[in-house]
Amino acid sequence: MLNPFENIEKHIHDGLDIDKNHIINGEWLKGKGDIFTKRDPFYDIPLFDGNYADEALVNEAVQIAKNSGFGWYLKGIEHRVSVLKNYSNLLLKFKNELAVSISKETGKPFWESLTEVQAMIGKVDISIDAYHARTPTNSSNNGADLQALMHKPHGVLVVLGPYNFPGHLPNGHIVPALIAGNSVLFKPSELTPLTGTLLVRLLLAAGVDKGVVHLINGARETGQQLLNHPDINGVLFTGSASTGISIHKQLAGDVHKLIALEMGGNNPLIIDDFDSLKAALYTTTFSSFISAGQRCTCARRLIVKNSIKCDDFLTQFISATREISLGAWDDNPSPFMGTVINTVTADKLLRTESKLQHLGAKALLNMKQSTRIKALLSPGVIDATGLRLPDEEYFGPLVTVYRYDSFEEAIDIANDTQFGLAAGLISKSPELFEEFKYKINAGIVNWNKPLTGASSMAPFGGIGKSGNHRPSAYYAADYCAYPVASMMSELLKCPEVLPSGLILKDD
Amino acid sequence: MLNPFENIEKHIHDGLDIDKNHIINGEWLKGKGDIFTKRDPFYDIPLFDGNYADEALVNEAVQIAKNSGFGWYLKGIEHRVSVLKNYSNLLLKFKNELAVSISKETGKPFWESLTEVQAMIGKVDISIDAYHARTPTNSSNNGADLQALMHKPHGVLVVLGPYNFPGHLPNGHIVPALIAGNSVLFKPSELTPLTGTLLVRLLLAAGVDKGVVHLINGARETGQQLLNHPDINGVLFTGSASTGISIHKQLAGDVHKLIALEMGGNNPLIIDDFDSLKAALYTTTFSSFISAGQRCTCARRLIVKNSIKCDDFLTQFISATREISLGAWDDNPSPFMGTVINTVTADKLLRTESKLQHLGAKALLNMKQSTRIKALLSPGVIDATGLRLPDEEYFGPLVTVYRYDSFEEAIDIANDTQFGLAAGLISKSPELFEEFKYKINAGIVNWNKPLTGASSMAPFGGIGKSGNHRPSAYYAADYCAYPVASMMSELLKCPEVLPSGLILKDD
Repeated sequence: MLNPFENIEKHIHDGLDIDKNHIINGEWLKGKGDIFTKRDPFYDIPLFDGNYADEALVNEAVQIAKNSGFGWYLKGIEHRVSVLKNYSNLLLKFKNELAVSISKETGKPFWESLTEVQAMIGKVDISIDAYHARTPTNSSNNGADLQALMHKPHGVLVVLGPYNFPGHLPNGHIVPALIAGNSVLFKPSELTPLTGTLLVRLLLAAGVDKGVVHLINGARETGQQLLNHPDINGVLFTGSASTGISIHKQLAGDVHKLIALEMGGNNPLIIDDFDSLKAALYTTTFSSFISAGQRCTCARRLIVKNSIKCDDFLTQFISATREISLGAWDDNPSPFMGTVINTVTADKLLRTESKLQHLGAKALLNMKQSTRIKALLSPGVIDATGLRLPDEEYFGPLVTVYRYDSFEEAIDIANDTQFGLAAGLISKSPELFEEFKYKINAGIVNWNKPLTGASSMAPFGGIGKSGNHRPSAYYAADYCAYPVASMMSELLKCPEVLPSGLILKDD
Repeated sequence: MLNPFENIEKHIHDGLDIDKNHIINGEWLKGKGDIFTKRDPFYDIPLFDGNYADEALVNEAVQIAKNSGFGWYLKGIEHRVSVLKNYSNLLLKFKNELAVSISKETGKPFWESLTEVQAMIGKVDISIDAYHARTPTNSSNNGADLQALMHKPHGVLVVLGPYNFPGHLPNGHIVPALIAGNSVLFKPSELTPLTGTLLVRLLLAAGVDKGVVHLINGARETGQQLLNHPDINGVLFTGSASTGISIHKQLAGDVHKLIALEMGGNNPLIIDDFDSLKAALYTTTFSSFISAGQRCTCARRLIVKNSIKCDDFLTQFISATREISLGAWDDNPSPFMGTVINTVTADKLLRTESKLQHLGAKALLNMKQSTRIKALLSPGVIDATGLRLPDEEYFGPLVTVYRYDSFEEAIDIANDTQFGLAAGLISKSPELFEEFKYKINAGIVNWNKPLTGASSMAPFGGIGKSGNHRPSAYYAADYCAYPVASMMSELLKCPEVLPSGLILKDD
């Protein structure tokens, strides 16, 4: 068995170029799939080399996960909670290493990666609370008869992680899944294998049974192989709508495989009114460009009132956006924005910006690609007032402005999307927020707060193309276990008066 | 607008042979689809004549439901609760009429239909409790910031009802859906249109907005048209696995349409040990043959220990089964079993019995078809010890016996199914039940109680081919609304120290 702590620092600092880069049953194994290399998007240093999993490796992992899950479940909730609390302590102990890994893989500033690890730590206690609150064990007496409710794990759950929060988001599926007693096959995004590997090393080090959590590195095809396997019981996915919809199609008719999809958004932020221009600028720039626009809750559409105050706001917003500093994750002082995930994505975003301008959107500030670091893009703003642009999530530092006159118009623009993840309002009026909250189609609805702010204590999920109605965060407990209801009696009894038409011999 | 009370008695006693048999926006409308007639399976009297809905009628209903839902939601939970409480009072007032309708359509004895209506009445208060407990509205202060949680309706939900509980089961979807503020398009089974129509009449009479609940009569194709409509937000289905799986396939990729499927079972009842033979006979015959075996929780497989006591039990079980009285729903004294739903089903069950015997199952008691009433079948028992029969749900009065030596073997046989709805154990040993509860794959796990007993206060759902992990009953609230989480502040603020790399002009 691997020593989970061995060479963690080397693992981070030199990258992981070992031949064996999957963790199955607590052992490093070599895949026989395609060769891949993950490179740091800023420094272009290789971070992870190896072969993707092949189908034999996938099958082996599923088989072990299937055979090991029941033992993990039978160890009881107290045991599982204590192991996950160990894990939380290890996250704290290796906070810096994990944050370095996240920053190296994603390009995001170090301070931001530290907040991501903090969210991972916080998730453990919240998930324990949610397990008891949402999927309780209880019983009640009704005369001599007893009724009881318990919740059982589904069995083998596949977790498919995204690249933008390579720690926090898979962690948000894995922790509640393990607490509920499932076994987990985790395939990180192929763009963030290093962080995924660390996460599994720390789970094993914390004492999760080696047959219960496995790391499988691979690309889209590997994910499909995992989901096709007849012995998996569900998939917990966070990523793009197009991938989520493919998963939904792939599993058509497989009613026995639970499908929990968290997907993107085309999130509106309405700017109605404010007292402090600085606060409005802060809330808007933060909502639009934090994580280089690579959060599913980022504001994609700024819906700005036609008013003198808002004209001024918009001018200042462009200036502030132009002044946002860019750089390496470890620059000192830290930049506000690092790279996007890779050059391919940066190039695609630039092409999107051109396309939208071809469709009539007006450039207020063009994104610019760094000549040296191709994954580094400065933020851009376009104005699409009066246009209907494609309803897509552009996952990067590009925001679209729409101007409006009446609040009704603003809500119509805001709701003119098939997505429904996050929506925000900047306004001095509680009445307008009340109206907004009822009329807007979204699962996260904020007022005078950055759109990217969500409480881990609350459920998190979107409607439309943003999810399939399996909200995560606090409600992740719901999709990690199924209810088992019992009617019980110590004594087998017969009613004094039998149902009419039933004739039974007396004892 | 129709007078919801007009001619209810005539409606029941003479059947509904009016030309207009859909209720859209509170009006009787005529469909242009195929002509159909529903006949009483015992007396062969027509109960319902008309044309199925055509696509234009489906589209009209969806449009009205879409436009009316928001108004219903905005009226508030207190209003909706009071309307549903009116409905519960009307169910009580028309209890006999409804039970007559259920009995006439299904053939089940009148006393049983009365218990079905009682369950419908009970559902209202339980659903109100569950709405508050599972989908709460709350808020909390964190300094000047407020966090809040509310739950919103999905919008337009299609309810597709089964024929075996034509009142209780659609009612179990419709009541929580309306409480949560959805609008409902209800298509009853084409085998029970009369009861479905009564249910909608009573909802309208209780004060549900006329645009919010609609009755659409039709067959499979009508259901497909409803589900294909782009403006529906979900489907709540109870019925067979094959239909549920078709729905899952039909909606592949439509992540925005919630899919809640309650399907069948191939339910095991293990008979290990007991003190009272009479009580064992009662529990087993009731579990196997109540509702002529047309409950999704009926015992389909009796897994009986090899012991002298159980040999005797089995002999007595065959005798008791042979003596079960059959007859019309309104016979006096009442029979224990009425007809199955129609002659087609009876014929199919007889063919199934022959097929299973061809596959090697031994007849312990053959089903017999009444020569006069073709839908009337006496109950049958086959022994399939050592065989692997097709893993299908035979929805009628036919039960299969398997003998076992060790408890481990019994659990292996019990779990040898792709379904996972209900499972039961008759045993004197609490330890065995404890083991059973953990090892058995089912959502309802009973001990020394009929398998068909389930508490409405508990969630109800199955795994495998028995459902898609959207349990109903107490947890129906979960699939009727989605969470909306908010971070709020009356004042728009800027942190004292801005994030590194963000430069904003001071106010």
